[in-house]
Amino acid sequence: MHDSFFDDKPREACGVFGIISETDRSLAAAAADTYHALYALQHRGQTSAGIAVSDGGRVHYKKGDGLVQDVFEGDSLKGLTGHMAIGHVRYAALRGTSGVNAQPLVVETLGEHIALAFNGNLTNAGQLRIETENQGGIFQTTGDAEIILYALVRRLLQTRSLETAVLEIMPQLKGAYSILILTRNQIIAARDPHGFRPLCIGRRRRAAGDNHDGNEIIFASESCALDAVDAVFERDVQPGEVVVASSDGLKSFSNRAANRRALCAFEFVYFARPDSVIDGQSVELSRYRAGQCLAHRSPVKADVVVGVPDSGLSSALGYAQESGIPYAMGFVKNRYIGRTFIQETQGLRERSLKIKLNVLAPVVKGKSVLMVDDSIVRGTTTGRVVSLVREAGASEVHLRISSPPYMHPCYFGTDVPDQGALIAVGRTEKELAEVFGADSVGFLPHESLSRILEGAGCPICKACFTGKYPIEIPQEPARDIFQKPIRRL
Amino acid sequence: MHDSFFDDKPREACGVFGIISETDRSLAAAAADTYHALYALQHRGQTSAGIAVSDGGRVHYKKGDGLVQDVFEGDSLKGLTGHMAIGHVRYAALRGTSGVNAQPLVVETLGEHIALAFNGNLTNAGQLRIETENQGGIFQTTGDAEIILYALVRRLLQTRSLETAVLEIMPQLKGAYSILILTRNQIIAARDPHGFRPLCIGRRRRAAGDNHDGNEIIFASESCALDAVDAVFERDVQPGEVVVASSDGLKSFSNRAANRRALCAFEFVYFARPDSVIDGQSVELSRYRAGQCLAHRSPVKADVVVGVPDSGLSSALGYAQESGIPYAMGFVKNRYIGRTFIQETQGLRERSLKIKLNVLAPVVKGKSVLMVDDSIVRGTTTGRVVSLVREAGASEVHLRISSPPYMHPCYFGTDVPDQGALIAVGRTEKELAEVFGADSVGFLPHESLSRILEGAGCPICKACFTGKYPIEIPQEPARDIFQKPIRRL
Amino acid sequence: MHDSFFDDKPREACGVFGIISETDRSLAAAAADTYHALYALQHRGQTSAGIAVSDGGRVHYKKGDGLVQDVFEGDSLKGLTGHMAIGHVRYAALRGTSGVNAQPLVVETLGEHIALAFNGNLTNAGQLRIETENQGGIFQTTGDAEIILYALVRRLLQTRSLETAVLEIMPQLKGAYSILILTRNQIIAARDPHGFRPLCIGRRRRAAGDNHDGNEIIFASESCALDAVDAVFERDVQPGEVVVASSDGLKSFSNRAANRRALCAFEFVYFARPDSVIDGQSVELSRYRAGQCLAHRSPVKADVVVGVPDSGLSSALGYAQESGIPYAMGFVKNRYIGRTFIQETQGLRERSLKIKLNVLAPVVKGKSVLMVDDSIVRGTTTGRVVSLVREAGASEVHLRISSPPYMHPCYFGTDVPDQGALIAVGRTEKELAEVFGADSVGFLPHESLSRILEGAGCPICKACFTGKYPIEIPQEPARDIFQKPIRRL
Amino acid sequence: MHDSFFDDKPREACGVFGIISETDRSLAAAAADTYHALYALQHRGQTSAGIAVSDGGRVHYKKGDGLVQDVFEGDSLKGLTGHMAIGHVRYAALRGTSGVNAQPLVVETLGEHIALAFNGNLTNAGQLRIETENQGGIFQTTGDAEIILYALVRRLLQTRSLETAVLEIMPQLKGAYSILILTRNQIIAARDPHGFRPLCIGRRRRAAGDNHDGNEIIFASESCALDAVDAVFERDVQPGEVVVASSDGLKSFSNRAANRRALCAFEFVYFARPDSVIDGQSVELSRYRAGQCLAHRSPVKADVVVGVPDSGLSSALGYAQESGIPYAMGFVKNRYIGRTFIQETQGLRERSLKIKLNVLAPVVKGKSVLMVDDSIVRGTTTGRVVSLVREAGASEVHLRISSPPYMHPCYFGTDVPDQGALIAVGRTEKELAEVFGADSVGFLPHESLSRILEGAGCPICKACFTGKYPIEIPQEPARDIFQKPIRRL
Repeated sequence: MHDSFFDDKPREACGVFGIISETDRSLAAAAADTYHALYALQHRGQTSAGIAVSDGGRVHYKKGDGLVQDVFEGDSLKGLTGHMAIGHVRYAALRGTSGVNAQPLVVETLGEHIALAFNGNLTNAGQLRIETENQGGIFQTTGDAEIILYALVRRLLQTRSLETAVLEIMPQLKGAYSILILTRNQIIAARDPHGFRPLCIGRRRRAAGDNHDGNEIIFASESCALDAVDAVFERDVQPGEVVVASSDGLKSFSNRAANRRALCAFEFVYFARPDSVIDGQSVELSRYRAGQCLAHRSPVKADVVVGVPDSGLSSALGYAQESGIPYAMGFVKNRYIGRTFIQETQGLRERSLKIKLNVLAPVVKGKSVLMVDDSIVRGTTTGRVVSLVREAGASEVHLRISSPPYMHPCYFGTDVPDQGALIAVGRTEKELAEVFGADSVGFLPHESLSRILEGAGCPICKACFTGKYPIEIPQEPARDIFQKPIRRL
Repeated sequence: MHDSFFDDKPREACGVFGIISETDRSLAAAAADTYHALYALQHRGQTSAGIAVSDGGRVHYKKGDGLVQDVFEGDSLKGLTGHMAIGHVRYAALRGTSGVNAQPLVVETLGEHIALAFNGNLTNAGQLRIETENQGGIFQTTGDAEIILYALVRRLLQTRSLETAVLEIMPQLKGAYSILILTRNQIIAARDPHGFRPLCIGRRRRAAGDNHDGNEIIFASESCALDAVDAVFERDVQPGEVVVASSDGLKSFSNRAANRRALCAFEFVYFARPDSVIDGQSVELSRYRAGQCLAHRSPVKADVVVGVPDSGLSSALGYAQESGIPYAMGFVKNRYIGRTFIQETQGLRERSLKIKLNVLAPVVKGKSVLMVDDSIVRGTTTGRVVSLVREAGASEVHLRISSPPYMHPCYFGTDVPDQGALIAVGRTEKELAEVFGADSVGFLPHESLSRILEGAGCPICKACFTGKYPIEIPQEPARDIFQKPIRRL
Repeated sequence: MHDSFFDDKPREACGVFGIISETDRSLAAAAADTYHALYALQHRGQTSAGIAVSDGGRVHYKKGDGLVQDVFEGDSLKGLTGHMAIGHVRYAALRGTSGVNAQPLVVETLGEHIALAFNGNLTNAGQLRIETENQGGIFQTTGDAEIILYALVRRLLQTRSLETAVLEIMPQLKGAYSILILTRNQIIAARDPHGFRPLCIGRRRRAAGDNHDGNEIIFASESCALDAVDAVFERDVQPGEVVVASSDGLKSFSNRAANRRALCAFEFVYFARPDSVIDGQSVELSRYRAGQCLAHRSPVKADVVVGVPDSGLSSALGYAQESGIPYAMGFVKNRYIGRTFIQETQGLRERSLKIKLNVLAPVVKGKSVLMVDDSIVRGTTTGRVVSLVREAGASEVHLRISSPPYMHPCYFGTDVPDQGALIAVGRTEKELAEVFGADSVGFLPHESLSRILEGAGCPICKACFTGKYPIEIPQEPARDIFQKPIRRL
Repeated sequence: MHDSFFDDKPREACGVFGIISETDRSLAAAAADTYHALYALQHRGQTSAGIAVSDGGRVHYKKGDGLVQDVFEGDSLKGLTGHMAIGHVRYAALRGTSGVNAQPLVVETLGEHIALAFNGNLTNAGQLRIETENQGGIFQTTGDAEIILYALVRRLLQTRSLETAVLEIMPQLKGAYSILILTRNQIIAARDPHGFRPLCIGRRRRAAGDNHDGNEIIFASESCALDAVDAVFERDVQPGEVVVASSDGLKSFSNRAANRRALCAFEFVYFARPDSVIDGQSVELSRYRAGQCLAHRSPVKADVVVGVPDSGLSSALGYAQESGIPYAMGFVKNRYIGRTFIQETQGLRERSLKIKLNVLAPVVKGKSVLMVDDSIVRGTTTGRVVSLVREAGASEVHLRISSPPYMHPCYFGTDVPDQGALIAVGRTEKELAEVFGADSVGFLPHESLSRILEGAGCPICKACFTGKYPIEIPQEPARDIFQKPIRRL
């Protein structure tokens, strides 16, 4: 699960949610549902949040920088009246700047109101943007959402049906995208042909006694958001599929691309919440099984197994139960650290980790500790966590990672800028153990990861571990606008 | 001068300011100058404020809803580093919605950063917007600034020189506009061919001892903003003129339109600050002379002359000194009433005027009072002010207005939606006296206004008084987007 | 009138207001009245504001740093239910620190709820505080209000009647105090035996048709606050008088001290609002007459008379009309400068005056200008204002002050710490003219001030001009707690 | 550990922290340490937070409502310069009102600056307060801290030594109190003779190479706060002990009461953080052992053991490992729910639990689930959690509680107002199972709890489970001030 305090993980850009409810159009019930769902998706982005609603005649929205609880405080939901809504949480990733890029991005044109929420990353954004500019487009943000909206609207001039326009622009859009589009009277969901990012459909039946046909349709990046609004999982949006939801129900349009699937493995390793099920595969069970595999493939004699909270806990439990070494809680994570943690004094950067994560000394003292974490990317905090455990009295610290070494940048919606920052590149497990001050380091083998994710029933993108990218990756930043964009303070 | 508490005046949309300074590009000196200047222009708009700066390589900006002091608080200027800046204050007028329409509007396209600040109103905005949409444009605001930017950028695709593009789009733009455009290395100022809205150029010489050539160039809606930054007035931007300021100094491009001038009379009557000089004419002296004329053209026997603060004071003094009736201060205006005045109890709307404006009873008690106000538009508070004066013991209240009856909507940047709201329409002076409970009412004759404003040396737009519009006015709102636009909370 | 931008005036500590209304006790009507009245008294203090209410059973309060509009925003009045209220505005004066000293100060003891609002300054505060501490008192503020409350409560242990306790402690309290005390079911007003600070009583009759006996009783520092709540002036609280207001009406208790009166002259010169009438004397007329006197006693040949806004305007008009020299508006004062004016760049302190106060150049250009201000205390801005007028083209600047030279510290509720800071001390009018760069300087003679204030029908404290203090003044700060008190950030 | 989302737990009032450091007195290093430590103690109170510092000459403070991160934001620590500091976090418990009761409470008297931070509850507060009022005391808060300060200061008048005064008033103070007192040059810590609430001493040695004698002394409610500032545990403050820390080091004064100890059992069950060690006993291990005992004393056939996060996790693990039933993570707790969770729609109270706590369906589906929670007090959410697990597909849900039934109100610093609200009162385990919809319910036997806490080496207060109070408990609220105190909004 996403953790904003540890700097060494790739950071997911976004979570999206949408709902067509059967509530009174003059109330803010759809916005309230979206608000609750965004809490469940908050781990996918803490930089900004936003909700756009429609009451059938007009689109309203509110968005801003900060957590869901900061952007929507007081009675700020009240004005968001309407029975349809989409919402977005975002992490300021690659090329992003604060303020201007909050989503949904809402525009007016051709008599239509269009709000768009986007999760992913276009690999040909620079080229598409230049094409747009050469046809008179102007950019108020630095995000991909605006690029997609321009493409959509230009196509719309030809076709006049929004869903057709969506289908027709998909071949131009390279990379990863799970999109929700809200108009006055429908929500359109689309997922790129490789299905890099998750997107699922839920349905909600109203209170018992209602015997209508349950036309409350929900879209969400992860199924945990369905639980948050008392909806049930129906199915995943298929890679390359466009789904249109309106008061007439669901219609599906396919973009023939089923065999190019490339679901992101890192969603299971780290991004997604353990209670989500993505493309048929439980995130929690994937992590537990990764721990089990690791126990076989990277065994060690130890007295106790602990997990680094929160994303290492499930794998630690799997390791413990498979190996027979007792599992214990090795850390207390401070639940109150917020965005604005004041670091006044020198040496404080060192201390800040300890304030966030304290070792349970009685658990590790005098013991050989097997410590499981989900992944190592930049590796900036790993060594300090090992030190904390030693200082608390552990006699040995063996580090086990429930994924393979992270070796290659991701271009599909995460924020790992360049290979030089990846600590596993060019280092053996032994060398890494030295770097981290651990007695040993072990990773999950590639083939184990593949086998674990077989449950998803489809090819997986493991490019960050293998370097085998499912599609062409961009070579150079297209132009300096991506280095030095306009900046809103 | 603008007064946000009295609802019965037309409300000016905007004030603009720009500066190219010679300060260190890594400091926020140009932003600080702009900040100070916006204080001097705050009377032209209190809904939102914003500043965009350039350091030669990149445009930064900050804007938001509220007064200058609210938008720029704490150390918020610090990030606005650069030697060039433009700023804007805005009142949410016709078609505006809060939040999205704050200016400057800043965009990126074709490798260029462009910030635009706008004062005025396009009469063909609807038509221009539809044309833009039909070429693939999308709108994130409901303001004219975005329409102008699209027109500019499409033209720029042909010409590749921004000043040429500005000149070439001016024939398409109908209505009133005084514009400032900031790019990475220049500021372009443009004023519509009729020169409805003011725009002037100033220059600042640096501290004594500096013997450089004084290349600090300033643009401002009113000359009072030049005073605020220690600059001196150089000249007005001419109607139809485009001026380009850069480190190379000023260059002027003319849009052959000198004889179509139509400077707004109401700037002198009410909008502008008395210490401004517009197109050669002092605002303060115009008002004083209007009072003098009124003494001749609408005499009455009275004991004392008082002005309604703040915009009626100068004319009251002129009336008094010309008529020989003593001038006195009749009112105390509360200087502390802010935006958020809580009106809890019933009957409070009545009381709120009294909290804002209290009569100096000893001054008016037992006297025949001649009360001068600058104009009557909706007339909603006028009767209540007359009552206050009577309640304080005046034996008679004669109302004199230092402008002609306001009879026709304005389409050039003010906010008077329809003729039905104008109280002088269809009423004689005698009937108005009855409506307001005054003993008599007198207006400034049209020809007096014309003569007073002769100092401006150019034709004046008096359409709000006469109904003679200098250009074609729009018939119907083009489409419903202007009635029901997207709305940001 | 108080002006927070010019540093060279003594600063009044406080304004107080109280009301017993006949409204529904479960509504916040009394708080709303107080809120409106505090707007009218805002000129007496801008550091903090507060309201305490009683519904007969319990005292609630809300207070904080800032203007009335800042402390009471949103729906913050709603919780202040009750039919009785007192309010306070305060300037952080002598010994004050931010935060802790906001009033009303509200305490509980002996089963009673007591809220106290105070205007003035105790000259024996140090001694009283030590006495209190020696009996076990602890201090959470550094203000006189807490000292008075302790004295009151200790007395209350003997008498059990609050009004008797108030009467009995008055001989111990030296200095200036106008006090309002709110309990569960009454408001007690008290004014020191010299009546240094104003305090008046008003009454409000409810809507027409009501034929009850108008038992809505109001107390206020200045009568302008009565106007703000539609009440009428009844009488001043007499020096040494204690007035108890409850649902039974008014009861008065006298503290035999009528012939020791010493009403503060500076209230008329500067502090009070012009529309207030204090002890029978109109503030506006006092200022106007001061201008008239000045025309006789300090004549000069000039082309135009201007006043420094806002407190110099009335005297300037008096001077002009008495001398026959034309009166004109010489300055525009910026109405939008708030508390948080960012001064980023060097040289900005110089500029900030110009942003606040701009000269109307066409009015003064080429003329000999007679400029009237109400007083000169520290004199820090006077020279800069003279310069502004010269820079705008005045050929001569003659400065006339509508009060005598300010030569002595005040110990009765203003904030002039020491004689060394008073610019008139040790300087002739000629020398002051040089200091200010004026062509001449003239002050109002002492005897003129006395004659003008005869209308108040009582002796006046002119100690700041004459050095003749009506009571003994403190010698040394009693202890270092007044130099280095606890400090709340 | 404290959890602000579940309403059915008693709520601890406070956490305290103090430090005497050797840092530069003109910096805010001691405040920064305190700030970090308060994060570690945040689970003990989320209503208000505050820090008071001394630089040897003067005490400064800052406090306010909200979390530590809310009260201290931006550069708000900067002003808190000094080498000594105390801090406080507080939950608004019995008799508390928002705003006024934030601590430390800081007063001035007798030339001394005194700041006090308090954790506990006086059982004779009403009587002490009346005594104080009868000697002239006035109350600005409704908390015990002010009562203690008055007692202290009155005693100080006799003794003139603060530590003696503390020792001498302790016999008067009945109930639970762990106190820190900051003056200009020392910190005094005191713990009531029964030692109800924890309080420990730590020491910090500065950076390696420093060979001074390590005179950085620290006090904290829990040892986890020592870890947060890199200090090491030295010892607990003994029940009845007064410890004085200054630049001269530590001095201890004893209040002969060692055999009356009564450490609160609920600190181990729920309040304290698992990584704290209180009076020699690890909180984490206590909980783990409670789970182990429970496995023996209340066995059941089940497929999986899950804990309710966060305070039920350790006991669940203990149960699992002792019983051999596999442990699993059954829930995901949302880490982003803040104070301001908007509940717009009806039925939302039901849903809000689900947003905070989601069941990992794949873990429990089709299984007999043994669910461990730490305690049941009001029981308002327990039934809903059982339902969630059933809805996720569990075939059976057996509830095990790692403490005895909570049957009696606490008067020593927690917030359980009356026996009627305690769901276990008058119900058998079978009846409770029915209430909660569980297949069975089992509690930890009293004697097991006693044995587990033997490590603390001292008698334990288990009054909430047994009704055997270690001291006399108050009968009736002394007076109505505790029902209807003054209220600050």
